[in-house]
Amino acid sequence: MRRILVINSNTSAAATQRIADVLQRHTTVGTQVTVVNPSKGPQGIDTLLDIAISGLESARLVAAHHDEYDAFVIACSADPGLDIARQVTDKPVVGICEAAVLMACTLGATFAIVAQRKVDIRRIREQVARYGLTGRLASVPSIDLATAELLQDVDRLYQRLLLAAHQAVEVDLAEVVILAGSVMAGFEEQLRDDVEVPVLSGTVCALKLVEGLIDLGVRTSKVYKYAPMKKLDRLQGYPGFQDVYSR
Amino acid sequence: MRRILVINSNTSAAATQRIADVLQRHTTVGTQVTVVNPSKGPQGIDTLLDIAISGLESARLVAAHHDEYDAFVIACSADPGLDIARQVTDKPVVGICEAAVLMACTLGATFAIVAQRKVDIRRIREQVARYGLTGRLASVPSIDLATAELLQDVDRLYQRLLLAAHQAVEVDLAEVVILAGSVMAGFEEQLRDDVEVPVLSGTVCALKLVEGLIDLGVRTSKVYKYAPMKKLDRLQGYPGFQDVYSR
Amino acid sequence: MRRILVINSNTSAAATQRIADVLQRHTTVGTQVTVVNPSKGPQGIDTLLDIAISGLESARLVAAHHDEYDAFVIACSADPGLDIARQVTDKPVVGICEAAVLMACTLGATFAIVAQRKVDIRRIREQVARYGLTGRLASVPSIDLATAELLQDVDRLYQRLLLAAHQAVEVDLAEVVILAGSVMAGFEEQLRDDVEVPVLSGTVCALKLVEGLIDLGVRTSKVYKYAPMKKLDRLQGYPGFQDVYSR
Amino acid sequence: MRRILVINSNTSAAATQRIADVLQRHTTVGTQVTVVNPSKGPQGIDTLLDIAISGLESARLVAAHHDEYDAFVIACSADPGLDIARQVTDKPVVGICEAAVLMACTLGATFAIVAQRKVDIRRIREQVARYGLTGRLASVPSIDLATAELLQDVDRLYQRLLLAAHQAVEVDLAEVVILAGSVMAGFEEQLRDDVEVPVLSGTVCALKLVEGLIDLGVRTSKVYKYAPMKKLDRLQGYPGFQDVYSR
Amino acid sequence: MRRILVINSNTSAAATQRIADVLQRHTTVGTQVTVVNPSKGPQGIDTLLDIAISGLESARLVAAHHDEYDAFVIACSADPGLDIARQVTDKPVVGICEAAVLMACTLGATFAIVAQRKVDIRRIREQVARYGLTGRLASVPSIDLATAELLQDVDRLYQRLLLAAHQAVEVDLAEVVILAGSVMAGFEEQLRDDVEVPVLSGTVCALKLVEGLIDLGVRTSKVYKYAPMKKLDRLQGYPGFQDVYSR
Amino acid sequence: MRRILVINSNTSAAATQRIADVLQRHTTVGTQVTVVNPSKGPQGIDTLLDIAISGLESARLVAAHHDEYDAFVIACSADPGLDIARQVTDKPVVGICEAAVLMACTLGATFAIVAQRKVDIRRIREQVARYGLTGRLASVPSIDLATAELLQDVDRLYQRLLLAAHQAVEVDLAEVVILAGSVMAGFEEQLRDDVEVPVLSGTVCALKLVEGLIDLGVRTSKVYKYAPMKKLDRLQGYPGFQDVYSR
Repeated sequence: MRRILVINSNTSAAATQRIADVLQRHTTVGTQVTVVNPSKGPQGIDTLLDIAISGLESARLVAAHHDEYDAFVIACSADPGLDIARQVTDKPVVGICEAAVLMACTLGATFAIVAQRKVDIRRIREQVARYGLTGRLASVPSIDLATAELLQDVDRLYQRLLLAAHQAVEVDLAEVVILAGSVMAGFEEQLRDDVEVPVLSGTVCALKLVEGLIDLGVRTSKVYKYAPMKKLDRLQGYPGFQDVYSR
Repeated sequence: MRRILVINSNTSAAATQRIADVLQRHTTVGTQVTVVNPSKGPQGIDTLLDIAISGLESARLVAAHHDEYDAFVIACSADPGLDIARQVTDKPVVGICEAAVLMACTLGATFAIVAQRKVDIRRIREQVARYGLTGRLASVPSIDLATAELLQDVDRLYQRLLLAAHQAVEVDLAEVVILAGSVMAGFEEQLRDDVEVPVLSGTVCALKLVEGLIDLGVRTSKVYKYAPMKKLDRLQGYPGFQDVYSR
Repeated sequence: MRRILVINSNTSAAATQRIADVLQRHTTVGTQVTVVNPSKGPQGIDTLLDIAISGLESARLVAAHHDEYDAFVIACSADPGLDIARQVTDKPVVGICEAAVLMACTLGATFAIVAQRKVDIRRIREQVARYGLTGRLASVPSIDLATAELLQDVDRLYQRLLLAAHQAVEVDLAEVVILAGSVMAGFEEQLRDDVEVPVLSGTVCALKLVEGLIDLGVRTSKVYKYAPMKKLDRLQGYPGFQDVYSR
Repeated sequence: MRRILVINSNTSAAATQRIADVLQRHTTVGTQVTVVNPSKGPQGIDTLLDIAISGLESARLVAAHHDEYDAFVIACSADPGLDIARQVTDKPVVGICEAAVLMACTLGATFAIVAQRKVDIRRIREQVARYGLTGRLASVPSIDLATAELLQDVDRLYQRLLLAAHQAVEVDLAEVVILAGSVMAGFEEQLRDDVEVPVLSGTVCALKLVEGLIDLGVRTSKVYKYAPMKKLDRLQGYPGFQDVYSR
Repeated sequence: MRRILVINSNTSAAATQRIADVLQRHTTVGTQVTVVNPSKGPQGIDTLLDIAISGLESARLVAAHHDEYDAFVIACSADPGLDIARQVTDKPVVGICEAAVLMACTLGATFAIVAQRKVDIRRIREQVARYGLTGRLASVPSIDLATAELLQDVDRLYQRLLLAAHQAVEVDLAEVVILAGSVMAGFEEQLRDDVEVPVLSGTVCALKLVEGLIDLGVRTSKVYKYAPMKKLDRLQGYPGFQDVYSR
Repeated sequence: MRRILVINSNTSAAATQRIADVLQRHTTVGTQVTVVNPSKGPQGIDTLLDIAISGLESARLVAAHHDEYDAFVIACSADPGLDIARQVTDKPVVGICEAAVLMACTLGATFAIVAQRKVDIRRIREQVARYGLTGRLASVPSIDLATAELLQDVDRLYQRLLLAAHQAVEVDLAEVVILAGSVMAGFEEQLRDDVEVPVLSGTVCALKLVEGLIDLGVRTSKVYKYAPMKKLDRLQGYPGFQDVYSR
C-alpha cells in the first residue's frame, strides 16, 4: 500500500476538501491518499510572503508526519516549501506545478501555465527557470481573477480559462496547457475538448508522479542541496523542526 | 488494465529478454508489459546511423501495434525514434533516458548520465539539451567500454560504473546518477549503496512514467510538432507507415 | 575540379529539376554539380516521419556515391540526415538551412527563417537551437501554405512571402531573411528589393559554402560525434549502409 | 541623514556585533547604521530550512521597523528573505551577496564566490542564477569548514581562503573574489594583497549600495513581483505581518 | 574628498553642461564632480562608428587625467570605451547604462531600457548581453526620435517617453524603466509618477555607484581582461596613449 | 573577377607579408587578393586598447578603399573593427576568427580556439558569445607565449600548439581546433596530422567565406545594427570617415 500525504498549503478547509474530491477520482488501487492543511498561515496564497509562510508550514507538516507516509505532495501551484521539505525528509516530495511541467514535457514540445493574476506571471517564470525548463515554456497567460472572484462565477472563470488557453495555443504556440493551481482544477477535460491540446491539472500529475517514485523505491539525494545537518542549534520559536537536526 | 508495449530498439533478442526480466520485477498490479524488438536494424546501437535506423524501426513497431496498447516505451538510452513515434500515435510514448532525467529532477538538484563510451558524451549532452534540461545536467562520465566488453566481464563493468559515479558525485557535484542504457540495468541498488545517491535505471523510470500518463488519461499534443498530416504521398519503400497519413 | 553531389531529399523529380535549375545559375568555373534524389521515401517532406525517412535515404545516397564526389549538400530545409551523412563520409556535408544561417551571421545581427506552415515553426526553432544559433534568430514567420498550394499560385505565394518578411523585419527586427526551402527558391532578389534586407536561398548558400570547404581541403572531424565504428553488426534490412561499418 | 537597518539574519548576538564592528569602519558621514538580529530562528544559517526561517524573521524585522529606516540590508550570504522584505516595504532592501555580485560586475569580467562548505555550492549557483548573473560567475570554490571550526582557528581559515581564492583566479579565471558571508569578513585586504585581485566583502558592498539607493530617492517597484495586496486574510500564527496586507 | 571625472563622450559643450546641471542636484557632501568632453569625435553619438571614436576619446581623457581623480564615469548610454578605460587605469570606471542596469536589479525583477531610435534596439540588447543581464531585460521600447528632434519639442519627447514606458510596463511586464541617455535625463520623476514604477537616470546611478566604489577602496582587476602590458610598441598616430604601455 | 581587400589590422609590414604568403597558396582562379595594413596604430595587437585603435584604423582602410573592392577581410584574430566596417560599407566584411568559427560548425559538434596568452581567454570567450556560438565552444586553451617569443622559436611554438590542441581534444572534447591568429598560421596541416582533428586557419577560412559571399551577390543588412546615417556632424579629428555620413 502506497501512503501519500497531500498538503494543501493554505489554511482553507474548503480548499482542502476540493483537493480531496479531485484526487478521489484518480486514486489507483494500492494508493491511500490523505489530504491535510496547516493550522497556521494564510487562507489563500497570493504573495511572496504567503508563499514563504505556507512553505514553512507545509514543511512542518512533512516533518511532523514523515514516518507515517511514503511520499508527500505540496498541493499549491507555487510549490511552497518544496525545497525545505526535501531537506526535512528523504522520502519523495513533489510539488504540483513541478509535476505538471515534468509530465507536460512528455506530451508536447512546449507548455503554457495559466496564471491567476498578471502579478503572478514573473514569479511563475522564475519558478520554471528554477526547475531548469525555461526552454520548454511557451507562455504564462493570465486570467486576471482574484481567488474570491474565481469561485463566485464559474462561467466567467471558464470563459477566462478558454481565452487564456486559446491565446497560449494560437499565439504563443503552446502544445500543452497547465492549470497548476487547485482552484482551477476540474476544468481540464472541458478545456481539452475546446482547445484540442492536452490540459493538465498539477494536483493529479503530482499524485501519479509520486506513485511512480514510491514504486521505484527511490529516496531524495542527501549529498549536497538537500543535505540534513546534525547540529546543536536551537531553532528558537519554531517548534516541530528541532528534531530535524538531530536525526 | 494498462497495456504497455516496450520496444527494445535493437535487434538482439537477448537484450529484449534482459529488459523483460528487469521490468518483470517492477510491474504493478493492473499493468501488462510486452517487450519486443524490431526485425530490421542494428544488433547494438552505437552510432548516429544506428540511432536513425533503429528509431525508424521502433516507430514502425508503434505504428503496427498502435491499436493494441495504451502507451509505448522506447527502451534504448538514445531514445531513438521518440519524436517520430509521437507523430505516429497520439497515445503516450516515453523514452527511457527522457524518463530518467524527468524523474531525477524530483530527487536532486542535478543529475549525471553515465555514458558507455567517450564518443557518446557529446551526443548525450545534445539529447539533454533537446529535452531542455541542460541546466540540471552535472556531467556525462564515461565508462569507456564497448557493448561486447560490457557483458563479458561484469566485475570490470561494475568497477567502471563505480568510478564514473564517484567522479560525477565528488567532482561534478551530481546529486543523482542515471544508468540510461538497458545494458547497465541491474546495478542501480548496489551502486546506490556504494555512492550514497539515488541511482536510476531509465527502463524502470519509463515504465512508471507511462503508467502515470495512462492513469491521467492524456494524449500527445497534435497541434504543432507532432501534427499528423493527411496526404496522398506514397512513402515509397517504407511499408508499415503509409496508413499513418490517411488516418 | 570540385565535384559536388546535391541531394534533393524527397522523391520528386520535378523538385530535383528545380534545384538543378537554380544551382546552374550560380555554379562557378571549376565546380561540377550533380543533383539527385532518392528512389525511396516521401514525395514532399512535411512531417517528422518524412524527415526521418528522407534523412536516411539522403545518407544512403552519400554512402553510395562517397568516392565519386568531393562534398555533399542536403537540399531540404529540414537538413534531413545531415548528422548521419557526416558519420557515413569524412568529406564535407552541408545542409541548406545550416548553410543559410551561417552565411546570414556575416550579413546582419539577426535572421528570420520563413516557415511554410505554422506547424513547422517549433521544429525550425529546435533546428536552429541544435546549430547553437538561437541567439541570432529573430523569428520564424509562417506563410501557411501546403506545398501543393505553393506551386499552384505564384502570386499568392509571393504575397505571403512579402507579408512574412515584412513582419519579420518590422516587428521582430530581423536583419536578414532566409528562404530555407527549395520550393521558395527564386524569389530572393524580388523580395530583397521589396523589403530592403538581404534575402538568402539556402540552396545557393550551401553550394558556396561547400566550394569553400573543398578549397580549404578539410574533412569532417571523426574524433567524437561523427566517429565511424568498425563492427560486425548486421544492419538487417538496410542495404547500402553495411560497408560503412567495415571501412 | 541616511538611516539604515542592517539585519543579521541569525540569532547570534556575537555575529551581530562582528557585523557592527566591520560596518563602523566603513560608515560615511551622513549615514547612521543600526545592526540587529531576530529573536527567533537558528543561531547559524546552514541549511534550506535555516534560510527559510531566518528569511521570514528578517522580513518580520523589516515589517516591524519599516517606518524608522530609509533602507534595509539583509546581512547573511544566502540573502534570506530578500524577496519577501521587498514585498513588505517599498524602501530599498539589498542582500549582501546580491550587493557583492553587482559591485563585482564593475571591477572585472568574472567573479568567484567563496563557499563555506561543499554542500553550499549548488545553492550559491542557484542564487546567482536567480540574480541573472550566471554568465559572470567563474566558480564557487569551497573552504570546507563549519562555522564553529571557522572561528576557532583563524590561521587555518585564512589558509583555506587563500587556497580557494588562488584556485578561483588561476584555474577558473575569476577576476574578482567575493567573501559573501559575514563570518569571512575582515580578510579582504590581506587576501587582495596575496592574490592580487579585488576581494569584496558583501556586508560593506551592501552598505555602499543602499547609501546610493537612498541618495537616488528610489523605491522598490510594486507593479508585479513585489506587489503588496490588500486582503482580509488572517495570517494565523504569524504576528507582525498582518498589517502588511492592510496598508 | 571623492574626486570624480564624468566624461560626456560626445563633443557637444551644451550636452556637457546639461550633464553637469543634472549631477549638481545629486552631489553629496564629500564628492567633487568635474564634467568634461573630448575635443575630437562626433557631436552626437548615433552609430557604431561614433561609439568607437568617442570611446577611444573618452579613454584618452581617462588616461590624460588618471592621476587627478579617484574614479571615472562614462556619460553616454552606449558606455563607449568602458572596457578600454578599465585597461588604461585601475581606478573604478563605470558606464551610465551599466550603472542603471545594476541599480535596477535591486528595485524590480526586470527592467526596460528606453531607446532613442528603432535602429538602436539590437545594439542595446547586445550591450545588456555583454553585461550578462539578458535574463533581467524585459524590453527595449523605442521613442523613435533623432537627437535634434528630441531637444526641439519637449512635450512630444515626454509623450513618446510615456508611451514607451507604458508599453514596457503593461505589455512587456517591465518593473523598472531606465532612461539611459543623458538627453532623456530630467524626466525621471514625472515619468515615475505617471507610470508608477521606478524610473532611473543612468547618469545619476553612475555617480552613486562610483561614490560607493571609492568608499570601498577597490580597484579594477588587472589579472586578465583588463591586464595592462608593458611593451615597446609605438601606438603610431595616437598621442596620449603611449605611456599606458610603459607604466 | 572577385577583388578582395585583406586588412592586417596591425602596423607590421612583416606580418602583412606573412598573411599575403599564406593567402597566395589558397587563392582560386577568379580571385584577386590585396593585403594591406594601416599606417597608424599598434605593431602588435595585445590589449583592448590595441583592438580599439586597430579596429578604427581597419575600418578607415575599408572606408578609403570601399569603391575598389568587392569584399573585405579583417585579418586579426580579435576581428577588430568588424562591426564598424559593416557600417562603413555595404559590401561583405568578414573577420578571420568569425570565419573560422562559422566554418568549424560544419566540421564538428564543437570547436576550440587556441589563445596566445592566458589573459586573452576571457576576451575570446566574449567574442564567441557575441557571435552567438557559445554553445559550440569546447574550450580556449592557451599557449602562453608573447608575439615576440612566438616568432623566435618555432619548435617551442609548435610544441605548445600541440599541447594546447591535445588538451582541447582529449580533455575538453573539442572536435575542431582553430588557430585564429595569423601568427599561428602555417601549422594547420602538421597539427591536423598529429591530433587527428580538423585544424582551421582563420585567414584562409575568411578568404573562402568572402569568395562565397561575393558569388552570392549579397550585401550587408543596413536596416538596423549597421544602418548608415546621413548627418551633418563633424567627426572632428578623424579624417577619412566624414564622407561615411554623407553617402
